[in-house]
Amino acid sequence: MILKSEHLAEKQNTLYDAIIVGGGAGGLSAAVYLARYNLKVLVIEKGRGRSFWMQQLWNFIPNVVSGKDLLEGGRRMALDYGADWLNGFVEEVTDTGEEFQVRVKYRRKNSEYPVFRARYLIAASGIMDRLPQLADMHNVYEYAGYNLHVCLICDGYEMTDKRTALIVGSEGAINTAFVLNWFTPYIYVLTGGAFPVSEAMREKLAAHGYPLIEKPIARFLGENHEMNGIEFVDGSQIAVETGLISMGSVRHSAYLESLGLKKDGEDLLTDEMCRTSHPRIFALGDLKKGLNQVSVAVADGTLAATAIWREVRRAAPTRKWEENLQTPAAV
Amino acid sequence: MILKSEHLAEKQNTLYDAIIVGGGAGGLSAAVYLARYNLKVLVIEKGRGRSFWMQQLWNFIPNVVSGKDLLEGGRRMALDYGADWLNGFVEEVTDTGEEFQVRVKYRRKNSEYPVFRARYLIAASGIMDRLPQLADMHNVYEYAGYNLHVCLICDGYEMTDKRTALIVGSEGAINTAFVLNWFTPYIYVLTGGAFPVSEAMREKLAAHGYPLIEKPIARFLGENHEMNGIEFVDGSQIAVETGLISMGSVRHSAYLESLGLKKDGEDLLTDEMCRTSHPRIFALGDLKKGLNQVSVAVADGTLAATAIWREVRRAAPTRKWEENLQTPAAV
Repeated sequence: MILKSEHLAEKQNTLYDAIIVGGGAGGLSAAVYLARYNLKVLVIEKGRGRSFWMQQLWNFIPNVVSGKDLLEGGRRMALDYGADWLNGFVEEVTDTGEEFQVRVKYRRKNSEYPVFRARYLIAASGIMDRLPQLADMHNVYEYAGYNLHVCLICDGYEMTDKRTALIVGSEGAINTAFVLNWFTPYIYVLTGGAFPVSEAMREKLAAHGYPLIEKPIARFLGENHEMNGIEFVDGSQIAVETGLISMGSVRHSAYLESLGLKKDGEDLLTDEMCRTSHPRIFALGDLKKGLNQVSVAVADGTLAATAIWREVRRAAPTRKWEENLQTPAAV
Repeated sequence: MILKSEHLAEKQNTLYDAIIVGGGAGGLSAAVYLARYNLKVLVIEKGRGRSFWMQQLWNFIPNVVSGKDLLEGGRRMALDYGADWLNGFVEEVTDTGEEFQVRVKYRRKNSEYPVFRARYLIAASGIMDRLPQLADMHNVYEYAGYNLHVCLICDGYEMTDKRTALIVGSEGAINTAFVLNWFTPYIYVLTGGAFPVSEAMREKLAAHGYPLIEKPIARFLGENHEMNGIEFVDGSQIAVETGLISMGSVRHSAYLESLGLKKDGEDLLTDEMCRTSHPRIFALGDLKKGLNQVSVAVADGTLAATAIWREVRRAAPTRKWEENLQTPAAV
């Protein structure tokens, strides 16, 4: 059920088998599996995560689907099997040793701060791509996720042999040009002037014929979500057919900081069932080491849910045929 | 394109980047990714694999879908992006060191035996569940994949608190009862008399109240794909609401035998990108160690395709902006 204010008191007394932070591709998959294992599960979703912005998932079989349809379909499945759902923001997680206490900010206005309890925690809160910060962010959202892409693996195909603006946030990210050029060699590299570019990198770009533009972006040009050019603050413009933003990402994992989970760089380390270094915390999808793809997150949800089910099941008393057994006459 | 007889001569001269053996969930995912990486890929599908028989995938977001729709949707996606497809059976794979030569039996009658070439091989040919072998196999197919299940993880939920026939092929498989009882304690264990049951197992079943029936099955009872009972060869019957077949499975991997890949038991060992112990052979889904779930196979396809793309890309010459570059006037 979808939890509203009137349910919060009762549900804070429930000991969930698992609380899932994040209702994206991984969290939804975990929720469906856990609910179908007849376990008590609560999904807490803050809204407008990474998949919300995906206009088309081109590579997730069996059908091209939008992020919104993926989220809505998965949510409906999880609810149908009995999962609980709360639209809220997880502020803090405390481990008592026996259970987790998960403090949530519910409602932006007149907020309440319920604390939910669970034996297992699934961190499925993902990451969010950094976008160019223009004065008019509506102009960015008009194209981001359409033909202004954020994922080279997902959307490289869509850029094949097109004039492409590669918008980067650091010198390291300029190297994306030398992967993007598998798909297209017609690459403008745009730094926005946000950082200095080394002489070695300037020479490498020049040798490839990729123009380096260091002026701040004023706005994206185009219409109907189809970007066809970029205007700079000095009024100059370039005509492009597509764009790729490579400015890094922000992790939605502040609530995990106090728990001291092991990482490789910023990625959470997990075992083959997505278990972190904490035996009752699992991490899915973009938060963990590995490829940031919807298909991977969906499989991660399967694995984490199944690992949790196995432990809960093995710890539970076995069920015998207790009813007054009527064996068939002939047996 | 779908390859027919008239294409075989030309396509045998093509050096594919990868040949995928098996057009199930994993193979289709790999095909879609590889094709979107602008690589040349051929899928060889023998037909009627495990997912073909799945009536509903209850746990693969965002929508409950049938196996046939999964296969048809994924196939259409792969073809749209330019993958080649052949309905045929892979008989033998030879590694020349530089490429694989894949010998295929094409057409059951008037067979041809084309040999296709690829740099990489993806083994996605999966497994098939063993089914009870009755005189009338149509009677088995009438219910298998409907409410006569083959996967406890997938369909345990559908058996919740229902009278269930557990049909086993070995004493070891009887232990499935003590996992199935998470979902339902109303379990009949049916051996068909195919093997002797130890005294210890008899006592364990009796202690749980699960009847052990060792008579051969004559046929499944029911109508419209809804099994509601089982009749034995002596004419006796039991009424059940659902069934679970746990008779092991057959691997579709004879073509790999000569390649000496490392295994754990029968499962192929792979790294985190699904690469086997052979650097140019990847294995997906049910053939490899891990959970046999559609979501896992789909992620495996993503990983293997991406690993192959990375290697092909890094070995390829870099693409420069070769056309007569027109930089925008103001830059």
